[in-house]
Amino acid sequence: MEILVPYDPTEPKGRLRPALAARERQSFAEAMLRDVIGAIEAAGHVPVVLTPAASALSCACEKVDDARSLSTAVTAQISRRLTAGAGAVGVIMADCALLTPETVTGLVSTSGPVVLAPGRGGGTNGMVIRDPAFTADYHGASIIDHRQIAAALGNPAAEVDSMRLATDIDEPEDLPEVLLHSEGRAAAMLKSWGFSLSRGEGRVGVTR
Amino acid sequence: MEILVPYDPTEPKGRLRPALAARERQSFAEAMLRDVIGAIEAAGHVPVVLTPAASALSCACEKVDDARSLSTAVTAQISRRLTAGAGAVGVIMADCALLTPETVTGLVSTSGPVVLAPGRGGGTNGMVIRDPAFTADYHGASIIDHRQIAAALGNPAAEVDSMRLATDIDEPEDLPEVLLHSEGRAAAMLKSWGFSLSRGEGRVGVTR
Repeated sequence: MEILVPYDPTEPKGRLRPALAARERQSFAEAMLRDVIGAIEAAGHVPVVLTPAASALSCACEKVDDARSLSTAVTAQISRRLTAGAGAVGVIMADCALLTPETVTGLVSTSGPVVLAPGRGGGTNGMVIRDPAFTADYHGASIIDHRQIAAALGNPAAEVDSMRLATDIDEPEDLPEVLLHSEGRAAAMLKSWGFSLSRGEGRVGVTR
Repeated sequence: MEILVPYDPTEPKGRLRPALAARERQSFAEAMLRDVIGAIEAAGHVPVVLTPAASALSCACEKVDDARSLSTAVTAQISRRLTAGAGAVGVIMADCALLTPETVTGLVSTSGPVVLAPGRGGGTNGMVIRDPAFTADYHGASIIDHRQIAAALGNPAAEVDSMRLATDIDEPEDLPEVLLHSEGRAAAMLKSWGFSLSRGEGRVGVTR
């Protein structure tokens, strides 16, 4: 299955500003992208990076250049593939740094015209779409919108219950999850920069 | 399978203080407990509330009174059941408000002497233990400790990848997850108190 991985290399991960400098955020975002691509490939699927700036992207992977908004670009790319005969198209966010091949397999093997994997805070971090009439809407609490869109097409969305898909790395509070649950490029990068887990009251954090 | 649900009714959910008054925290914690108990029962398993204050607990469920520390009490209760002939004993935290019967089934049906479901921020929100030599250690980043304890017993822990098990409701930032992904007692309570989702930049929050 082709799995779209939306990624904008222009000043990525702004909400990580309190933890990482601009150049670090760029490197870290690309490390997470490579971890996601690696997990998709290891699961036997085909990652396709969907980006508004393909020329700025150095990774040796399939790329589709589409400068439209995320929702418009994803909708168009899904629709094009399904009408051309693909049975299903996936979407996984590029900052799902905990992604494993097993997680990808779990998402892809879930049946239904619209399969959704929620992200923390109302996002939609993974999808498998088998209905060419589906439209993506990433604005606001997208998981709610995507549920409504699926229902309007005639079937409730199937949902995938995965911590690894739910955990996108957007904010400093997300960084411990990378150190706790990944041994990929992004985790190695954080360690090489001196990040480690700090244990106090409640949830663990990171120190540098 | 018997599934222990540790719950201390004495001033629960202190980290929700910025969002809820003391009496509300008490009611909300008990609503989450009831949601967890309901999901376990609906999955065909037997919840056993493990508490240091059984007399203060009004719910009509099986209770075990054990005033020792969480780690000591859980270790003792697991060991006692396994040595008495149980094939497995489960543990699920009382603040996993998104728990569904399917989540419980996924945890319980995972094989291995030590099965772990991580919680956000290094916690361990679910376990299934089949080795009577296992010891629980909930202090600090417990998922790391539990992995090491399992490995020392001879086998790497099996891990369950579940957003619903990973999402314990400890901090105000967790409240949106209840409104987004549950229709249980805890969600109804938040709505009755005037909480609703607020959509801005990034993850959704709650307003009241």
